[in-house]
Amino acid sequence: MALSEFELILRYFTAYQDGYAVVTGIGDDCAQLSLSPGYSLCTSIDTMVEGIHFPKNVAPDKLGWRVLAAAVSDLAAAGAAPMGFCLALTLPDSDEAWLSAFSQGLIEAAKAFEIPLVGGDTTRGPLCLSVQVFGEVAEGAMLTRAAARPGDDIWVTGTLGDARAALDCLDSAEPDAAQQTFLDQYYRARPPLMFARQMPGLAHAGIDISDGLLADLGHILKASQRGAILNLEALPLSEALAGTYSTAQSRDYALTGGDDYQLCFTAPVAKRDQLTHCAREYGVSVARIGEITDAETLTILDHGKAVSLDILTNKGYLHFS
Amino acid sequence: MALSEFELILRYFTAYQDGYAVVTGIGDDCAQLSLSPGYSLCTSIDTMVEGIHFPKNVAPDKLGWRVLAAAVSDLAAAGAAPMGFCLALTLPDSDEAWLSAFSQGLIEAAKAFEIPLVGGDTTRGPLCLSVQVFGEVAEGAMLTRAAARPGDDIWVTGTLGDARAALDCLDSAEPDAAQQTFLDQYYRARPPLMFARQMPGLAHAGIDISDGLLADLGHILKASQRGAILNLEALPLSEALAGTYSTAQSRDYALTGGDDYQLCFTAPVAKRDQLTHCAREYGVSVARIGEITDAETLTILDHGKAVSLDILTNKGYLHFS
Repeated sequence: MALSEFELILRYFTAYQDGYAVVTGIGDDCAQLSLSPGYSLCTSIDTMVEGIHFPKNVAPDKLGWRVLAAAVSDLAAAGAAPMGFCLALTLPDSDEAWLSAFSQGLIEAAKAFEIPLVGGDTTRGPLCLSVQVFGEVAEGAMLTRAAARPGDDIWVTGTLGDARAALDCLDSAEPDAAQQTFLDQYYRARPPLMFARQMPGLAHAGIDISDGLLADLGHILKASQRGAILNLEALPLSEALAGTYSTAQSRDYALTGGDDYQLCFTAPVAKRDQLTHCAREYGVSVARIGEITDAETLTILDHGKAVSLDILTNKGYLHFS
Repeated sequence: MALSEFELILRYFTAYQDGYAVVTGIGDDCAQLSLSPGYSLCTSIDTMVEGIHFPKNVAPDKLGWRVLAAAVSDLAAAGAAPMGFCLALTLPDSDEAWLSAFSQGLIEAAKAFEIPLVGGDTTRGPLCLSVQVFGEVAEGAMLTRAAARPGDDIWVTGTLGDARAALDCLDSAEPDAAQQTFLDQYYRARPPLMFARQMPGLAHAGIDISDGLLADLGHILKASQRGAILNLEALPLSEALAGTYSTAQSRDYALTGGDDYQLCFTAPVAKRDQLTHCAREYGVSVARIGEITDAETLTILDHGKAVSLDILTNKGYLHFS
């Protein structure tokens, strides 16, 4: 059965597209979004390719959620409020069952993240998805990688390493409870968007943990031209992770595993109470894992004792390395 | 040689990224753009896949121009002023020569269209490019497909069918002058952005001609729930096209060929003089090719005599048909 590009978009993707800032949505050459006065546009694009960012023959509903979660995570990193997203979907053929399941996962995620689909493009080719997200942030208040200051606390949300652990059990026919936790984190990540929106004014630098904590914190340090002390024992590990792997392996996953889509940010010591209160209000767990320093080096401590980076199996996920 | 995603982006794509509305550009999780007060964001995403939207082994500089031209064309359709674009680039390996040439074409186009690159994502996989463009338009003034009114003139910019004729000579080793015209149109399209920005307030409905005039005008008619009379003899054909092909073939290409990236718009009769003047001011040729009607049918006339649609070889470029 042949489906035209236009029918595809209209049939599956207009189900969730209500209100917010959307003036003109799907179906025109451009979508039109209206920003709040005094706010700037924050925007980011993320691509996922079959066999690189997700396994071949992944369940399409899981893919739908995952691709949007990864994209909105960049809005969280900037402290921006979600406004809408566009999807560029390249797929080998117009398999209706696939599209229907994919759309279901995508729309479920769109509802969870309160971000409507406002436009897209569908093309035929090897499976590849790009999602462009739009958010808004008060002018001058966007969190950036370059804004870390010496003395800032380093914070992360949620737990780290679970998505990496999922890679060990993607093919598991009957995942146990711990494995289910890992797979949920991998396929149904929930970037802390509501909490992140409160960060402008509280935090300085921000980034999402997509390439692994060390790699992503490294981006902050490089852009800010600062260093850091990281306390290994403060890394937030899930019970599932700590119960499944050795301490060394768990920490390795937490430091170098990608796809967690949690937030790493730096904030002045004076904001500790406010941050903790805010995290509680939005149901987000936060952990204070270190400190920004003036030296441009990264020191990793285990209960105060320096640890070598050579313990790590993976130096972070670099796409062309 | 291995190049990380970050190095790629920084090395090639930050060369052109000055001023305009860009608050935070490449290198952070989000780009940040500032809109003019009273303006809305217009945005659109376009994907091009090797072997579908451009030939395999296309010269990378030509591809760089073409992918951006196709994307900004949607801003022209909306009457929006360009603000910036993001590029999602998926390519099989990190071929530096390819990337360098591609970037050169892309940046050349970015300068010609006065639209800076503000963000992107590079991934490994089968060659595929998505470009998301951002523009701004005065609130409530965006041209849409649904705004055509009975009695409106139908206008197009430039000449039509040349890009379709290019498909007949893509492999030509020594293209003649006419073929060079076609290839230029195909690889170096120049959507009439400056003229298009003047259309809010003058025109009602707008669309860019990417799928062929009949298909794209059809989108306007469907969205506006109107019909049209189209005068074949008024179709603007280049000398190259009219000199190379029979009248019937030239018109067929003009009606059904894609990739022209010209503008089709409808406007009240009372605006004819103003539109003609505006076109002259911005160095754009415009042709009045028909009229919007109340009936939901499309009538094609050749010097006033009805012509059947069956003369056409191609009913428009539908991606999954």
